[in-house]
Amino acid sequence: MSKRKETQPISRSHTLQSHLVSPSDTNHLQTIFGGNVLAYIDEAAAIAAMRHSGEIVVTASVDSVDFHAAVKSGDLVNVEAWVASTGRTSMVVYVHVSVENPATGDMKTTTTSFVTMVAIDDQGKPAKVPAVFGETEEEKQIIELARNRKNGR
Amino acid sequence: MSKRKETQPISRSHTLQSHLVSPSDTNHLQTIFGGNVLAYIDEAAAIAAMRHSGEIVVTASVDSVDFHAAVKSGDLVNVEAWVASTGRTSMVVYVHVSVENPATGDMKTTTTSFVTMVAIDDQGKPAKVPAVFGETEEEKQIIELARNRKNGR
Amino acid sequence: MSKRKETQPISRSHTLQSHLVSPSDTNHLQTIFGGNVLAYIDEAAAIAAMRHSGEIVVTASVDSVDFHAAVKSGDLVNVEAWVASTGRTSMVVYVHVSVENPATGDMKTTTTSFVTMVAIDDQGKPAKVPAVFGETEEEKQIIELARNRKNGR
Amino acid sequence: MSKRKETQPISRSHTLQSHLVSPSDTNHLQTIFGGNVLAYIDEAAAIAAMRHSGEIVVTASVDSVDFHAAVKSGDLVNVEAWVASTGRTSMVVYVHVSVENPATGDMKTTTTSFVTMVAIDDQGKPAKVPAVFGETEEEKQIIELARNRKNGR
Amino acid sequence: MSKRKETQPISRSHTLQSHLVSPSDTNHLQTIFGGNVLAYIDEAAAIAAMRHSGEIVVTASVDSVDFHAAVKSGDLVNVEAWVASTGRTSMVVYVHVSVENPATGDMKTTTTSFVTMVAIDDQGKPAKVPAVFGETEEEKQIIELARNRKNGR
Amino acid sequence: MSKRKETQPISRSHTLQSHLVSPSDTNHLQTIFGGNVLAYIDEAAAIAAMRHSGEIVVTASVDSVDFHAAVKSGDLVNVEAWVASTGRTSMVVYVHVSVENPATGDMKTTTTSFVTMVAIDDQGKPAKVPAVFGETEEEKQIIELARNRKNGR
Ligand SMILES: CC(C)(COP(=O)(O)OP(=O)(O)OC[C@H]1O[C@@H](n2cnc3c(N)ncnc32)[C@H](O)[C@@H]1OP(=O)(O)O)[C@@H](O)C(=O)NCCC(=O)NCCS
Ligand SMILES: CC(C)(COP(=O)(O)OP(=O)(O)OC[C@H]1O[C@@H](n2cnc3c(N)ncnc32)[C@H](O)[C@@H]1OP(=O)(O)O)[C@@H](O)C(=O)NCCC(=O)NCCS
Ligand SMILES: CC(C)(COP(=O)(O)OP(=O)(O)OC[C@H]1O[C@@H](n2cnc3c(N)ncnc32)[C@H](O)[C@@H]1OP(=O)(O)O)[C@@H](O)C(=O)NCCC(=O)NCCS
Ligand SMILES: CC(C)(COP(=O)(O)OP(=O)(O)OC[C@H]1O[C@@H](n2cnc3c(N)ncnc32)[C@H](O)[C@@H]1OP(=O)(O)O)[C@@H](O)C(=O)NCCC(=O)NCCS
Repeated sequence: MSKRKETQPISRSHTLQSHLVSPSDTNHLQTIFGGNVLAYIDEAAAIAAMRHSGEIVVTASVDSVDFHAAVKSGDLVNVEAWVASTGRTSMVVYVHVSVENPATGDMKTTTTSFVTMVAIDDQGKPAKVPAVFGETEEEKQIIELARNRKNGR
Repeated sequence: MSKRKETQPISRSHTLQSHLVSPSDTNHLQTIFGGNVLAYIDEAAAIAAMRHSGEIVVTASVDSVDFHAAVKSGDLVNVEAWVASTGRTSMVVYVHVSVENPATGDMKTTTTSFVTMVAIDDQGKPAKVPAVFGETEEEKQIIELARNRKNGR
Repeated sequence: MSKRKETQPISRSHTLQSHLVSPSDTNHLQTIFGGNVLAYIDEAAAIAAMRHSGEIVVTASVDSVDFHAAVKSGDLVNVEAWVASTGRTSMVVYVHVSVENPATGDMKTTTTSFVTMVAIDDQGKPAKVPAVFGETEEEKQIIELARNRKNGR
Repeated sequence: MSKRKETQPISRSHTLQSHLVSPSDTNHLQTIFGGNVLAYIDEAAAIAAMRHSGEIVVTASVDSVDFHAAVKSGDLVNVEAWVASTGRTSMVVYVHVSVENPATGDMKTTTTSFVTMVAIDDQGKPAKVPAVFGETEEEKQIIELARNRKNGR
Repeated sequence: MSKRKETQPISRSHTLQSHLVSPSDTNHLQTIFGGNVLAYIDEAAAIAAMRHSGEIVVTASVDSVDFHAAVKSGDLVNVEAWVASTGRTSMVVYVHVSVENPATGDMKTTTTSFVTMVAIDDQGKPAKVPAVFGETEEEKQIIELARNRKNGR
Repeated sequence: MSKRKETQPISRSHTLQSHLVSPSDTNHLQTIFGGNVLAYIDEAAAIAAMRHSGEIVVTASVDSVDFHAAVKSGDLVNVEAWVASTGRTSMVVYVHVSVENPATGDMKTTTTSFVTMVAIDDQGKPAKVPAVFGETEEEKQIIELARNRKNGR
């Protein structure tokens, strides 16, 4: 069993990263490489899953990702992640990515995705993880989103 | 219209990258971060799409990715990509990732995915792309895979 | 004058980054290089100052930084920043860095510092910045901290 | 003795990497740093030598490298490597680097070089490596090139 | 006790690094990120302290850093460091950073700072370090600077 | 013509970089990748040639490089470079690389090489460079080394 209690509030795993996009993250169009955003998503999801389970984690899968808005050099990218549902050893992490224009403060959703992380114990085997519950309205919606995803898969 | 002829053989876009996984690509379990593999997938898909279209490209979407086999420091990761189907301005790139044990030569599929790339012209607008056709049996299977994906989406 | 209103709440500039420390960020003792933490502090302060002023910013100075707790590979580093006082074109950003043990959830303050950022307009000249005010008790304390720093300098 | 059979076909070690040159790889002239190309050469040679020998390898020497054509941001760089001759524990790897214009598909040779890699066993000592033979005309030419290099050294 | 004699000349720890600032080190104004300079300062100070003590070192603190001159892409940054005073297990390293215009050879001081490094032995405990003495006029001034810093702290 | 006088002392171009080798620069044997050392050589040579000519430079060629001593994580690598002979627009830079054991202070030569750099003017064309002369005995030996290299090429 993991080093955590049997159930954890979703707030326990909430993770936020704000990145400043520098010229070295971008291509000739001065837009960020999709691969950089994917790497941000994976890192935020891993941190959320470590916070929930108290264990080292590995990425089992990433749901499809649609990039709706380009991200330019000089923009801010906000990556936010929560563990939204759990299995025995796996956790589904909801990740929300938005681009923020620092001159105006405007935010646009770039993409959202679900990442499945598996907790791994000291012997390198999958480890049991606590269940998750939401307290606020927003948190309950995230859990709802994760439930609908499962059905539609 | 793109700087390419109206149809291109799939071999025109074939892209291969072999990476040596070094300790700095890995976590405490000495396994590669999922985000690194996702970034490899995006880069190989972008190169394939640039080769097919002759244009700069951006990532519009990445289909879901399942990681079936862990990749250890010291392993080789082979990323292979082909443009497998095309729309007006978008290209669906099939990406195959395998892990190779250099001591034995054994290869295992780590994951496969489809990445949709959009060609962008000098004004930053989506640009028309050539169609694609396969010549060998293997190439025709890749196009078939992409067709089935569309139906199942 | 900057693209912002004349005064801004401190919450407008609040910035958070959680980093997972990987083996490649650390030395032989498996502890993070001080320089990596300093670079995190500078990036978080720059984002906070961009959010407050709506302008590009440059680092004018960093107050002394004391590292109270070592950060190991596998730990999480949380960097939090707020614009805490302003001059005509400069902003003093308060930065708080903590290390989080993901297995237990324990947090320890690693260091705090003040970074002075200057807003720069399109001609490369310093640009006027809005004033700042706090709303909650915690926010007012941050402004108080920045005021005491000025006196003691 | 290495974990490989006594002789290996040259195709066993064939290695290919296609890189997309991004702005962060280049200087003020927007041309790639020579050091980046040298690092690509070393990595491709190491992978080829690991594939041939089944062992970890270290770089013993790099023959002189002439850069005949500049590589711009947005270009593709193709690095191709084969083990072309062997000693007791050392392997001479032939590396060919070309620059590809993705808009036109034109390729130009940037440079070629020979890199000598030494196989290292678990005790950190040089390890015996298999001999190499070519099957196709192109492969036999590569072996011929390596033979001539030896004489002219 | 450290692996060094009881006192060491200051020249023993003298460290110099010249960096070429490339586009990927800079922001939209083409000026270097403050965080990059801070990371250079930390690395040079660590090398100086390792040379003085013969031990692995960790950063205990960095004095305040004022950035007097902007550093542009294409400039050279020279970072110079000396161990300037010592405690039982700690060393105060004086670091001088200048920017050099390669077209004219002009140099300007960007910043100076004091970094305190602590020597760490094989058990991870602070290790005794040798004292330091200056021989030339310049070296004695550096020691004097460090002494005045202590008083004014 | 370059922005420099007609002849320059060799000391004008002298360049030194000390690097601390961290775990992320090394392979499984904990020894540095040859490619990292080659990239250091190229960067130091470029800085020396910029200092001599006052122009942007590109790498035309690198003479063969033999790696005589392995470099371990935790070691220091010292890279030293001087412009040692000049043509009309090209400069031959002598580069000396040594590994330093910080525990003992012992230094060993890792490799030496000659790198040819070409000065490039604002139109992207090769630019005339000043001649070079040595003043001390050591400097005259470096020029002598470069002369012998030319004959033996
Ligand atoms: C993820 C992994 C540990 C699963 O191993 P396994 O032998 O299938 O283990 P199990 O059958 O016990 O499955 C463990 C959990 O992972 C889940 N899982 C396995 N594959 C999955 C996938 N592709 N997508 C989502 N969940 C998956 C299982 O459903 C199970 O969940 P549960 O315990 O909540 O019911 C294994 O596939 C692996 O190591 N993959 C590589 C991970 C990695 O290194 N990623 C980085 C890039 S390669
Ligand atoms: C991709 C993008 C250019 C599409 O712009 P748009 O205004 O929707 O343009 P269009 O409607 O003309 O669509 C262009 C093509 O993209 C396809 N497309 C758009 N969104 C897509 C998605 N999420 N997945 C797959 N294809 C998509 C369209 O189907 C169309 O294809 P077609 O020409 O073959 O029929 C735009 O959404 C964008 O810039 N996204 C960000 C891309 C990016 O920067 N990615 C990196 C990380 S953020
Ligand atoms: C390469 C190295 C292992 C050779 O060690 P050594 O004690 O000379 O070992 P040996 O005399 O047994 O030589 C082993 C093989 O290397 C070859 N070799 C040694 N130095 C060489 C050089 N400079 N160029 C080409 N081949 C060389 C020998 O000819 C011999 O080849 P063979 O077995 O096919 O006949 C050693 O010099 C070394 O570790 N160098 C540093 C390698 C490194 O870390 N490079 C990365 C950057 S520093
Ligand atoms: C180096 C380069 C500018 C030379 O261009 P060129 O058209 O041959 O120009 P020139 O004939 O006027 O030669 C200029 C000088 O370079 C020297 N040169 C050219 N190729 C060289 C080589 N391979 N090795 C050494 N010197 C070389 C010439 O001898 C001449 O020297 P001099 O003026 O002192 O007599 C050109 O080959 C180039 O751009 N190469 C790529 C450089 C690069 O981008 N390197 C990074 C990695 S690809």
